[in-house]
Amino acid sequence: MNSATLLRAIARGERSAREICDEALACIEASDGAVNAFTAVTAQRARAEADAVDARRARGETLPPLAGLPYAVKNLFDIEGLTTLAGSRINQELPAAHEDAVLVQRLRAAGAVLVGALNMDEYAYGFTTENTHYGATRNPHDSARIAGGSSGGSGAAVAARQVPLTLGSDTNGSIRVPASLCGTWGLKPTFGRLSRRGTYPFVHSLDHLGPLADGVHSLALAYDALQGPDPLDPGCQALRVQAAAPALQQGIGGLRIGVLGGYFREHAGAPARAAVDLAARTLGARGEVLWPDAALARAAAFIVTASEGGSLHLHDLRQRPQDFEPLSVDRFIAGLLQPADWYLRAQRFRRVYRDQVNALFQDWDLLLAPATPVSAPEIGSEWIEINGSRHPCRPAMGLLTQPISFAGCPVVAAPLWPEGTGGMPIGVQLIAAPWNEALCLRAARMLEEAGTARMEP
Amino acid sequence: MNSATLLRAIARGERSAREICDEALACIEASDGAVNAFTAVTAQRARAEADAVDARRARGETLPPLAGLPYAVKNLFDIEGLTTLAGSRINQELPAAHEDAVLVQRLRAAGAVLVGALNMDEYAYGFTTENTHYGATRNPHDSARIAGGSSGGSGAAVAARQVPLTLGSDTNGSIRVPASLCGTWGLKPTFGRLSRRGTYPFVHSLDHLGPLADGVHSLALAYDALQGPDPLDPGCQALRVQAAAPALQQGIGGLRIGVLGGYFREHAGAPARAAVDLAARTLGARGEVLWPDAALARAAAFIVTASEGGSLHLHDLRQRPQDFEPLSVDRFIAGLLQPADWYLRAQRFRRVYRDQVNALFQDWDLLLAPATPVSAPEIGSEWIEINGSRHPCRPAMGLLTQPISFAGCPVVAAPLWPEGTGGMPIGVQLIAAPWNEALCLRAARMLEEAGTARMEP
Repeated sequence: MNSATLLRAIARGERSAREICDEALACIEASDGAVNAFTAVTAQRARAEADAVDARRARGETLPPLAGLPYAVKNLFDIEGLTTLAGSRINQELPAAHEDAVLVQRLRAAGAVLVGALNMDEYAYGFTTENTHYGATRNPHDSARIAGGSSGGSGAAVAARQVPLTLGSDTNGSIRVPASLCGTWGLKPTFGRLSRRGTYPFVHSLDHLGPLADGVHSLALAYDALQGPDPLDPGCQALRVQAAAPALQQGIGGLRIGVLGGYFREHAGAPARAAVDLAARTLGARGEVLWPDAALARAAAFIVTASEGGSLHLHDLRQRPQDFEPLSVDRFIAGLLQPADWYLRAQRFRRVYRDQVNALFQDWDLLLAPATPVSAPEIGSEWIEINGSRHPCRPAMGLLTQPISFAGCPVVAAPLWPEGTGGMPIGVQLIAAPWNEALCLRAARMLEEAGTARMEP
Repeated sequence: MNSATLLRAIARGERSAREICDEALACIEASDGAVNAFTAVTAQRARAEADAVDARRARGETLPPLAGLPYAVKNLFDIEGLTTLAGSRINQELPAAHEDAVLVQRLRAAGAVLVGALNMDEYAYGFTTENTHYGATRNPHDSARIAGGSSGGSGAAVAARQVPLTLGSDTNGSIRVPASLCGTWGLKPTFGRLSRRGTYPFVHSLDHLGPLADGVHSLALAYDALQGPDPLDPGCQALRVQAAAPALQQGIGGLRIGVLGGYFREHAGAPARAAVDLAARTLGARGEVLWPDAALARAAAFIVTASEGGSLHLHDLRQRPQDFEPLSVDRFIAGLLQPADWYLRAQRFRRVYRDQVNALFQDWDLLLAPATPVSAPEIGSEWIEINGSRHPCRPAMGLLTQPISFAGCPVVAAPLWPEGTGGMPIGVQLIAAPWNEALCLRAARMLEEAGTARMEP
C-alpha cells in the first residue's frame, strides 16, 4: 500500500495508525533478511507513536500532515536511546543519543511513525552500501545487485515497500544514487536548506539531508515538514518555509526545461540516456544545455570530501585504522594528507563554479540529467563499462551527481525504467536553481502523473 | 603640525589644502631618504585633490570631514594608474590599477588628499618591513631600528610627520606592530568590517584593513569615512555605519576594563608590561583577565596564514621562487605543503575559540595588552630576549597581536613611552568585543587626553 493511500485511509479513519505500524513492522521482519536495509527496528517506539496518533483522532483532533505514516532513517540520524552508528563499528562504543535529530523531531511533530534505522556506507563514504561491518544492503529488484549508497538502506527500504518514507543524506550523491538504483523518489534539497543538527557529520562543506519516498506528494509533504530555520545549526541558512506540496498543483506550463549534454551524456550508458530522453519528452524539454566544468567540479568535490572527512576521523585513523571500512579507509588517510593548497583551491574554485552554474538558470528553469551512469551493478563489482570506457565501479556511481551537489542545487531523483537494463530502474535528476525545490517537485509530479516515472517496472 | 590643527586650519580657511599638500610633499622629499617609508609619491594627483578641496571652499561648499588632510596608503591598496606592488618584485609586471581601492575612494570622498604609496613586507608576510627589494623602512625615532611590519611604511610615515594619516593592513598584527614600534595610533577594526575590494590579498580568512594616525580624533574620523557596507565584497559583513568620532565625547565612565594576564605578561618584557600598567592606571582597570588559548590561537593563525598565503602564490612559487622575498619564501612554500588536516583543524578551532573570546566580553568591556613584547629591535636582528627566553625576532613581533586578531576583535594600538626602552615607544592594545570599535577609540581618547599615550616621547 502506498503512502498516498495510507495517508488518506488514516485521515478518513478507515485504518488506524497502529494497524499500519504493525503491518510495516511485520513486513520488515519478513523481508529484511533478504534486503538488509535495517540496522535497528524501533518497534516499541513506533507503536507508541502510532497509538498517539490514534488517540488524537479519537479525541477529534485535526491530524498533522504525515499522521500515521511509517518511516525510517539512515543510521546517521540521532534517535533518542540508540547509538548513532553512521555505518561504523567504531561508533558502537559511543553512548546512546539523548535526543532525536532535528529532522526526526520534525517528522514526529508531523505525525510520522519512526520504525527504525537504516544501513549505509561507513561514515557515508561510498556509493554502494557494501558495508563490511553490517553486510551489503541488497537491491529489492535483484538481490545480487547493489542498492546504491551511501543511503542504501534508505533507498532499499522504500523500494521493498518496507516503509513509504525514509531520510537519507547526500554529500556527493548519496540520496540520488540509491534512489536511482532502487527506483524510488528522492529529494536532495539546496545546500544549507535543512537543519543537520543531531546527525553524524561527514563533510561539513557538502553534507545535505533529505527524504526518499514512494511518491511525489509524500516526498513534498515530508520536505515541507522538514523545512524551517534552525538558529542552533550554523550550517542551516533557511530563513523561512516555502511550502512545496501546495505548489504541486501548478504543473509545469511555461517552464524552460533543458537536458544536460556533453559530460552528462558521455558519462551515461544508453539506458541512462534513454531515461533522460523519456523524461524530456514528457516534460517538453526544449534543448541541450552545457553545464560548466563538470569534471573539475567532481575533482574538487573529491578533494573537499577526502580532506574534511579524513580530518574529522584523524584520531581514529591514527589509532585504529583496522577498525574502519576497508573499502574507504585508504581514501580517508589520503585525504588528510593532501596538501592544504589542494583543499583551498577546491574551495576557491567552488565559489566561481557556483556563480557559473547559477548563471545557467537565467535561461533555464529546470535541467535534466541521469542520476547514475548505469543501472545497479552486481554486489562486489570492481569495474563497469560506460560507452566503451572502463571505470572503477564504486566512485563511478557518483559521476553524474557530484557536479550538481557541488553547486548546491536542489534535485529530485525520479525513477524511470528504460529498455536495456534487464528490468532495473535508473533515476533522472530534475535540477533547479538553489532554493527552488518546488520546481523540481512540480516536474516530478508531472512525470508521475504521466506514468513516465513510477515505483514499479 | 598635527592633523587636528590642520583640519581646523583648513576648515576655518586659515590655510589652503594646496599649501598643506605642498608642505607634505616637501617633507616627504626631505625626509624619506632616511626613513624609506614611500615607494611612490603621487604629487600630481595630490595637488589636484588639494586644489579640488580649495575650489569647493571657494564656492562656499561645506567641506567633508577630512578635507585637505594628506594621507598615504600601504602599497597593497590599488591606486588608479599605479601598479599595486604589495611589496613584491613580481608584481612590477602587473598592469596599473584601473581604479582606486574602495577605501581610497572613500577617503577621497571625505576630502583627504592622497600623496603616495608606502613600503611593506612582501605580500604582507612579515612583521619588520625589512623588504629586500625596496629596502628596509627605518624607524623615525632611531634609524638603526625596524619600523615594524608589515605596514612599516604606514607607521613610519605618520611617526616621521610626513603625513598625519595612513592606511595599512593587519592579518596577524601588521597595523598594531608598526604602530607600537613607531609610536603612532592605529586601528585594526573588527574582522569583516571594512571593504577589502581593490587591495592585494594575503590571507582571505584573516586580512583586515585599517587606519594609522597622529591622533585619536583623526583616527576616528578616518575610520568613520572608511566604514559602510560593500555588496560587491563578499568578505565585508558590515550592514551599516556606526559613527565612532561623535562617541569620543562619551568618556569611559562605567566601562569594565581589565588587563590580560598569563600569556600576555609572560611574553612581554618589563617596559611592555610597564606600558600596560600605565594605561591601566589612567583607565582605572579593575583586574587581571585570562584570555583563552592564546598560544593555540597563534599556532592556528600561523597555519591558516601560511596555507592560504602559499596557495595564493602557488604558481609563482613553483615558477620563480628566486624572485620572492628571501625572508618569507620558505614559509610560503612550507605553508602550501601543510596537510589539509592542519588547515581544517585550525579553522575548526577558530570557531570554538571565537565563542570563548566573545564570552569574556560578558564580564569586561575593554581589555588591555601590550602590542609588542619589546620596543623596536635593530634592523637585521635574528633573536630577541623576552624575560630570559630567546625568541626568533621577526615572528616574535606578533606574539601578542596574533591571538587577538584570530578572534576578530577590534583593537586600537595606543603609543606609550615607558622607561627602559632608550626612548623608544611601545604600543598598548585596547581590545573590545567584535563590532565595538567605538569603545576602543573612547579609551584611546582618554589616554590621549591624560597624556599617557602620545605621539612624542
